[in-house]
Amino acid sequence: MSVTVIRYHHHMGRWEPDARGRLTQAAGELYAERGFDDVTVAEIAERAGLTERTFFRHFADKREQLFAGQEILEQAMVGAVAEAPDAAAPLEAVELALHATAAFFENRSTWSQERASIIAANPGLQERELIKMAHLADAIAAALRERGVTEPAASLAAQSGIAVFHVTFQGWVRPENTRSFAELIDESMAALKGVTGS
Amino acid sequence: MSVTVIRYHHHMGRWEPDARGRLTQAAGELYAERGFDDVTVAEIAERAGLTERTFFRHFADKREQLFAGQEILEQAMVGAVAEAPDAAAPLEAVELALHATAAFFENRSTWSQERASIIAANPGLQERELIKMAHLADAIAAALRERGVTEPAASLAAQSGIAVFHVTFQGWVRPENTRSFAELIDESMAALKGVTGS
Repeated sequence: MSVTVIRYHHHMGRWEPDARGRLTQAAGELYAERGFDDVTVAEIAERAGLTERTFFRHFADKREQLFAGQEILEQAMVGAVAEAPDAAAPLEAVELALHATAAFFENRSTWSQERASIIAANPGLQERELIKMAHLADAIAAALRERGVTEPAASLAAQSGIAVFHVTFQGWVRPENTRSFAELIDESMAALKGVTGS
Repeated sequence: MSVTVIRYHHHMGRWEPDARGRLTQAAGELYAERGFDDVTVAEIAERAGLTERTFFRHFADKREQLFAGQEILEQAMVGAVAEAPDAAAPLEAVELALHATAAFFENRSTWSQERASIIAANPGLQERELIKMAHLADAIAAALRERGVTEPAASLAAQSGIAVFHVTFQGWVRPENTRSFAELIDESMAALKGVTGS
């Protein structure tokens, strides 16, 4: 509780420990129970033990909340590419970037499943997701070029890596899946190498 | 001229031989001369020796014309995957699909260059292009599954193939490029194999 008091900001309102995480978890639970359309921001905030105003300090609306993890993912992936050992080949650096996202997803499995089914049911959100994935590939390609990887290798490694990411994610959110995100990355990466290896 | 008379349709208006091709070529020339925004449909039709009404029988508007080749491309690619030899590995079938588009682009090089620079300058059109590319990858993955390729190999081969297509296209439309579309496909495909091969 002392942390809460210490971090009290007059203009931002009371600082709530991990408000974003609590709001995300609450939204995931409520969407699983009643579906995206039937849940209000007030209900999400209540489930999280927070106010509606706190929700709107973190997210513009319910739809924005669906895409709020993107920045964290991008930072994790770009950071992992930058910190990959010098000797790592381009696709190895990308593989490290994919593994850098595993904890993010494992900590948000209910949310990720609900988010995936909401997006799958809405063509507009699907398009937005595609665009976000393309930006992610661009950011990874830029991080590879920073390491001295030339084109087209940088773009091809980044885009193939995003294909692996996509396949991994789709497999991981399947209700019957029991395997870890990290295991599925390794499996999908091996499948990519199998498809493209001569 | 007899063909024109024979194919006269009362409701569709006069049939014009290769009206779409002529309108596309005219638009490419005019965009190269004056830029996308400053060219009107009336001018495109006039340059093609056709009427504005003919333009609007083929395309809803100038923007739609930019994406009108998509269906032809998709048919060519899906057809090439379906007709690939039984022994062809998934990525080999995709490579045949990429080569099946080469003539399409070689016959529309001015148009393709202009189209690429119009799209590069407009984020809304870029997003639409991304979505079209994603649909193309889905169509190729479906054609691979028809051949008995299982998942995730089908999606990974299709999405990596679209990455190769993208890189090839970007290299080919560069003003200083002197190499053929087919040559650049081979080079980009070799680069993909270099990046992913262990």
